[in-house]
Amino acid sequence: MSKKFVYLFSEGNKDMRELLGGKGANLAEMTNAGMPVPKGFTITTEACTQYYEDGKAINADIQQEILDKLAILEEQDAKRFGDPENPLLVSVRSGARASMPGMMDTILNLGINDTVAQGLVKLTNNPRFVYDSYRRFIQMFSDVVMELDKRSFERIIDDVKEKRGVALDSELTAEDMQELVVRFKEYYRSQKGEDFPQEPKVQLMEAVQAVFRSWNNKRAIYYRAQHDIPDSWGTAVNVQTMVFGNWGNDSGTGVAFTRDPVTGEKKLYGDFLMNAQGEDVVAGIRRTSDISELEKINPAVYEEFVDIATRLENHYRDMQDMEFTIERGHLYMLQTRNGKRTPGAALKIAVDLVKEGLISEQEALLMLEPESLDAVLHDNFTKEALAQAIPIATGVPASPGAGCGAAYFTAEDCEAQAKNGPVVLVRQETSTEDIVGMQVSEGVLTARGGRASHAAVVARGMGRCCVAGVADLIVDEDAKTAVLGGVTIHEGDFLSLDGSTGNVYLGKLATEEASISGDFATIMEWADKYRQMSVRTNADNAHDAGVALSFGAEGVGLTRTEHMFFAEDRIPAVREMIVASTAEQRKKALDKILPMQRGDFEGIFKAMKGLPVTIRLLDPPLHEFLPKEKEDIAALAETMGMTFDDLNAVVVSLQEVNPMMGLRGCRLPIKYNEIAEMQTQAIIEAALNVYRETGMKVIPEIMIPLVASKSEVKYVKGIITAVADKIIAESGIDLPYEVGTMIELPRAALAADRIAEEAEFFCFGTNDLTQMTWGFSRDDSGKFLGDYLDKKLLEHDPFQRLDRRGVGRLMKIAVDYGREVRPNMHMGICGEHGGDPTSIKFCHDIGLTYVSCSPFRVPIARLAAAQAAIQNPR
Amino acid sequence: MSKKFVYLFSEGNKDMRELLGGKGANLAEMTNAGMPVPKGFTITTEACTQYYEDGKAINADIQQEILDKLAILEEQDAKRFGDPENPLLVSVRSGARASMPGMMDTILNLGINDTVAQGLVKLTNNPRFVYDSYRRFIQMFSDVVMELDKRSFERIIDDVKEKRGVALDSELTAEDMQELVVRFKEYYRSQKGEDFPQEPKVQLMEAVQAVFRSWNNKRAIYYRAQHDIPDSWGTAVNVQTMVFGNWGNDSGTGVAFTRDPVTGEKKLYGDFLMNAQGEDVVAGIRRTSDISELEKINPAVYEEFVDIATRLENHYRDMQDMEFTIERGHLYMLQTRNGKRTPGAALKIAVDLVKEGLISEQEALLMLEPESLDAVLHDNFTKEALAQAIPIATGVPASPGAGCGAAYFTAEDCEAQAKNGPVVLVRQETSTEDIVGMQVSEGVLTARGGRASHAAVVARGMGRCCVAGVADLIVDEDAKTAVLGGVTIHEGDFLSLDGSTGNVYLGKLATEEASISGDFATIMEWADKYRQMSVRTNADNAHDAGVALSFGAEGVGLTRTEHMFFAEDRIPAVREMIVASTAEQRKKALDKILPMQRGDFEGIFKAMKGLPVTIRLLDPPLHEFLPKEKEDIAALAETMGMTFDDLNAVVVSLQEVNPMMGLRGCRLPIKYNEIAEMQTQAIIEAALNVYRETGMKVIPEIMIPLVASKSEVKYVKGIITAVADKIIAESGIDLPYEVGTMIELPRAALAADRIAEEAEFFCFGTNDLTQMTWGFSRDDSGKFLGDYLDKKLLEHDPFQRLDRRGVGRLMKIAVDYGREVRPNMHMGICGEHGGDPTSIKFCHDIGLTYVSCSPFRVPIARLAAAQAAIQNPR
Repeated sequence: MSKKFVYLFSEGNKDMRELLGGKGANLAEMTNAGMPVPKGFTITTEACTQYYEDGKAINADIQQEILDKLAILEEQDAKRFGDPENPLLVSVRSGARASMPGMMDTILNLGINDTVAQGLVKLTNNPRFVYDSYRRFIQMFSDVVMELDKRSFERIIDDVKEKRGVALDSELTAEDMQELVVRFKEYYRSQKGEDFPQEPKVQLMEAVQAVFRSWNNKRAIYYRAQHDIPDSWGTAVNVQTMVFGNWGNDSGTGVAFTRDPVTGEKKLYGDFLMNAQGEDVVAGIRRTSDISELEKINPAVYEEFVDIATRLENHYRDMQDMEFTIERGHLYMLQTRNGKRTPGAALKIAVDLVKEGLISEQEALLMLEPESLDAVLHDNFTKEALAQAIPIATGVPASPGAGCGAAYFTAEDCEAQAKNGPVVLVRQETSTEDIVGMQVSEGVLTARGGRASHAAVVARGMGRCCVAGVADLIVDEDAKTAVLGGVTIHEGDFLSLDGSTGNVYLGKLATEEASISGDFATIMEWADKYRQMSVRTNADNAHDAGVALSFGAEGVGLTRTEHMFFAEDRIPAVREMIVASTAEQRKKALDKILPMQRGDFEGIFKAMKGLPVTIRLLDPPLHEFLPKEKEDIAALAETMGMTFDDLNAVVVSLQEVNPMMGLRGCRLPIKYNEIAEMQTQAIIEAALNVYRETGMKVIPEIMIPLVASKSEVKYVKGIITAVADKIIAESGIDLPYEVGTMIELPRAALAADRIAEEAEFFCFGTNDLTQMTWGFSRDDSGKFLGDYLDKKLLEHDPFQRLDRRGVGRLMKIAVDYGREVRPNMHMGICGEHGGDPTSIKFCHDIGLTYVSCSPFRVPIARLAAAQAAIQNPR
Repeated sequence: MSKKFVYLFSEGNKDMRELLGGKGANLAEMTNAGMPVPKGFTITTEACTQYYEDGKAINADIQQEILDKLAILEEQDAKRFGDPENPLLVSVRSGARASMPGMMDTILNLGINDTVAQGLVKLTNNPRFVYDSYRRFIQMFSDVVMELDKRSFERIIDDVKEKRGVALDSELTAEDMQELVVRFKEYYRSQKGEDFPQEPKVQLMEAVQAVFRSWNNKRAIYYRAQHDIPDSWGTAVNVQTMVFGNWGNDSGTGVAFTRDPVTGEKKLYGDFLMNAQGEDVVAGIRRTSDISELEKINPAVYEEFVDIATRLENHYRDMQDMEFTIERGHLYMLQTRNGKRTPGAALKIAVDLVKEGLISEQEALLMLEPESLDAVLHDNFTKEALAQAIPIATGVPASPGAGCGAAYFTAEDCEAQAKNGPVVLVRQETSTEDIVGMQVSEGVLTARGGRASHAAVVARGMGRCCVAGVADLIVDEDAKTAVLGGVTIHEGDFLSLDGSTGNVYLGKLATEEASISGDFATIMEWADKYRQMSVRTNADNAHDAGVALSFGAEGVGLTRTEHMFFAEDRIPAVREMIVASTAEQRKKALDKILPMQRGDFEGIFKAMKGLPVTIRLLDPPLHEFLPKEKEDIAALAETMGMTFDDLNAVVVSLQEVNPMMGLRGCRLPIKYNEIAEMQTQAIIEAALNVYRETGMKVIPEIMIPLVASKSEVKYVKGIITAVADKIIAESGIDLPYEVGTMIELPRAALAADRIAEEAEFFCFGTNDLTQMTWGFSRDDSGKFLGDYLDKKLLEHDPFQRLDRRGVGRLMKIAVDYGREVRPNMHMGICGEHGGDPTSIKFCHDIGLTYVSCSPFRVPIARLAAAQAAIQNPR
């Protein structure tokens, strides 16, 4: 046999996590550190993979290896499997590389059968303990291995308790337990058509297979999908000599953390139960005691445990989550692992461990999950409120935080009602017209779209909470009602949206405010020390820019100018421009927009205090600014003093089959120079005004969207520089500025060498780049992306996490080509991926100079960039 | 001076075409062959480029080089520029690498002025000739160099003729000519505010600059755009000693071809005029004589000319187009070049030249323009008919050939009326619902779309003529009228469409039938001998497949199954499938479609006689099969026994913002397995039936559309093979089949290595690949692609000619990746580019195994593939 599939605990160590799983590696580590760990062995994750390769069967070689190791265990413990004279009982536990709830966890007392039970009674003189253990084993084995319904066994227990007239399990006698064993076996036979397996080795092999099977049960698959754990990893199985917390009143079992997992405070935190087995602590049937109580009950054991806890934390250099059992006064460690913690506790623990000299700053940074910072940055519902509330519907958690308010079904109604109190916007889906309505709302709820939908993207940018894609939401705008999870909502009804979970509640839930503690600031300071990419923000107005600056943004990576076009006081002029039939008319309308745009830019430039600001020229197709329905067109025609037919003709002429690939981006200024001229004028004049007023010289970076070729850049750059150079020359001020391009079409990446001859910087628009590369319309892919994820055709939604093989390769091509021509070209990313930690790592690795994300993700990006730099320094 | 900008004719040769232009290279070649060519020199194309680089000025170095060469000319001819005793006169002609009508052509008699004229009178004793030459020079120089209106000079001539009471120029006397010179100079001064330039060197430099300028006049730019000539080439200028065909009655001038450019027959073909200069022959003012007449007038000169013509043809090994002048009985050759010819003549000449042993088969193939074969393959209007007709509108020549018929404005009306006589379908734009209407029509006329529009693509596939994108066509379906170029068309009015020019005529023009001569067959035979790619066809039915087979198709590269879904007898079942809410209902509806699809495939398999047939699974979004307008939905709901609301809900649920990137292609079977199951069943059963019936074993190639990742292919392939393998096993017949993918999304190309692990063949869908790579929606890009071409942001429409830098690089990536995994993988192209010669060459170069195009382009593709193989053998 070439490969070793089974390791004794003494043969492993903590670095063999991939092979032995987290639990197995840690048991080995503790064993080797001389801690009191019951003896055992680990069947490797490779055995699990092999099991699936062999068509869900443990092959003879691996079976033999398991039996060989079992024999060693028997020898070490001087006990034998199935021997009534001196029987060996074992626990069987799963243990994947990453801790994974949802998989089969534990079978205790394996190896017991009728004759072993009799033998044990003789040995222990404790028939109640023996038959309690036996009935527990039958229960667990039947449930977990044989998939019999757990509740049937509970019903038998209830029946016996009733007959005995007792309320608690602990009141049952040895005879009762024995009766349970009999009745359990009867039930088993009635269900499975065969006797409960008496042969311990059969029990063992069945249990091992059950662990392997549980790797692919529904909950496990779901958990993996949620936590990005590859299906291919597989799980290990740990087989360990039983120790009994239920041996008697000098026995017990418990779980404890070395620090408080909620606050991060440095103190033992946990519970224990005397005369109980592990599951009793978790099940909550009996009231557990705080770990500190153990000191009174058995000070020696407590002291030993405290000592071990300290050693483990020092050894693993992280907060530990430990399981222990006390058998007849002796302490046994059953498990240790890095403990899960709240985001706030994670920050405190990381900083404390550095202060205590246990880890370095870099290690502290790598310990943190960047994504978890999101929770620290937004208001959230209180734990208490959530514990009591029942969601009426659940959607995609599209933008985190808590949002409570009166429901309204149009952006206009939200605007009108927002002065009277908090509102939430409830829409079938949102569009650019809803921007202002979203801004005044506490949260946004939509029936369509996912994390990359308009509602989601805009809400995240605003730091507004958003639940999107609620399948059972139907909004009837006209009737001003919505049906949500079967409940009819009228306007003004209060809703509470949890953007972190996607849950929607009726009424108003209590919230708690976000607070950025000193530990958070410390972590950010360290992150800034190590990261090699700068972090900018996407901001379309001075307010967002200011928020981002306070979160540490080092510039604006994307200002979308079109959002400014939708404001109520501007859209008439925008529409006038669109219906213009000559360049002159168009220019006249644009002249009205000019001072407003200039004002916007002045605001952003001032807010950013001289940091670079990238402004993207108008991008969306013009029809987005015009109404679509006949009545609205008629109304607008009247306002504009046009005939319906004339305005309708414009609307029809602008209609597109696939607007995403139509007349937008740089194609607009190529057709109508005047738009880019006006925007350039507004940008440059704003920069000059801010300089004159404040003395701060902002460097505007003017960005051309939707570029596919060098000639487009050259053409539009020509328009920009003609206007900019003239204004700058006239001002007498030496104002540098740059002209660059979005890289958001596959062709732009493929022709990046040529484009770099004209473009002074690149910014990857990975939303569009993903759309085009995959041919996935963001607006429509909701219809099938779910199927793709369900059927495992995609590991991740490519709009959430950068697709390295496809989109990533195009980015790499573009970076390499661009730098060939302009070695020091600055290159960034401003798509949604700019705020996704995994994608940020990729951006670091291919050599981008900055990432840009929504203001509330700036701290996340700072941390992710630091982690990337620590892991793969340039 | 590092670069030489001016070459004497004796310094050049025919291989210096890039530098000297076609005319200059050939003059040099003839000079070196000892033919009677007036002496001269060529100013290079690089001088033209330099002229533009120097801000439209001839720099001092180049001016000096011109004067140096002029001095040599003076020495050789023993004449001097501006010397009345013995003056040198020259012609100045443009000459680009490729012959280019639209540019400034010729200025004759340059160097003449008042004193030179007087001197020449003394020298020649022929004042009429001298002043005729002088007035011609003033006319040409004023027109071409100074851009004065030519007609003003004609008016002065008319005035003098009226005064003299004569009708013809030739009746004017020497004094009349002298008067013309005086009046011309007066007119010149009145217009330009300065005297007509008397200094010959000034005349020369002005003329050279005018040639350079004319490279960028509108007509030249337009011609280049039409003929794919890069703007960067520039033109050369030829300066040549004048010889005078208008010296007297022993002088003359003419043009002739070595073979008949219309029929290809081997005989001298041309015209001449005695006592005339070149322009007179072309202008058509005087009746010219057939070249054979020259034998009577001057047998010696004729014999010499015949001899030179033969030598030139043998030398250039191609039919020559020659200009000559006879000066006082001496023959001078002014130009020779490969002659333009009709497509039919081109075939005959190529075959004849091989037969005559002048060229090889390979050279014959390279001589032909594949695109020109199109004209030979379709019916066309007669020359006579076209000469008399005036188009009322012009659109995009979207599918070649002639189409006459009564106009109808809906596909249904066309279907209904086609039995009564020929019809043409006139639509704002066509959609898949119009397929049958197009099939019964003689031609298709649309207001929207270009060469890549639905109408164009489908019409080309059918060999049906199509004029698309006629801007001044407005169709009013309800009123059953259309306004076309200002004329109101009622249904039943006859229209004639010229799909080769885009012209539309009122009434019925005479047509002539296409005939494939023996020379054509010979050429195709040679092409098949040398090409290394096979040529398949895109065919959706047995008829098209049969046509393609007769044109030499070696298989079907693309069968679009959706076209079959639109037929009147099928669409109810298709709609039933779409509105089905369970897989079972869907299956029931599909069961109705199954026998029809099977029948279609049987037809195609039989037509292709055992050649491979690639069938693409259903591709378009489902909403294409449902009505869009409220009334139509209501009507269909009634037919289907559904409520309006229920059907409307389905329609709404299928609506997409960007359908091109929505639920289509392989995303359909991933959501609804049953569609692919039915189609697979139909394909495999059809292949088995055909085998049982005819003994021909067709190899079906089942193609999965719109793939982006390996997992999609694996999933859909799983559906296909499950069904196929079962049916094949049950049949007991050993039927091989293949499963492959379209490569039409950028990601498919980028992930081709992974995809090739599952896909057995690739087929590049370059229409969609171009759309996605550029982000150009085919349906919408008409709005801006025109601007792009006008503003020279694009050299070519990327839907017409494969974009090598972008789309081409993706293809190359995919080919290389695919072959890494499957070295012998067959790979083809089935987009519109598969019929474009330049794109076919690219496909050959990157290693594709086949191209697939519409039936009528199969011969073109065969020739283009042969040329590619000859130029770059694998």
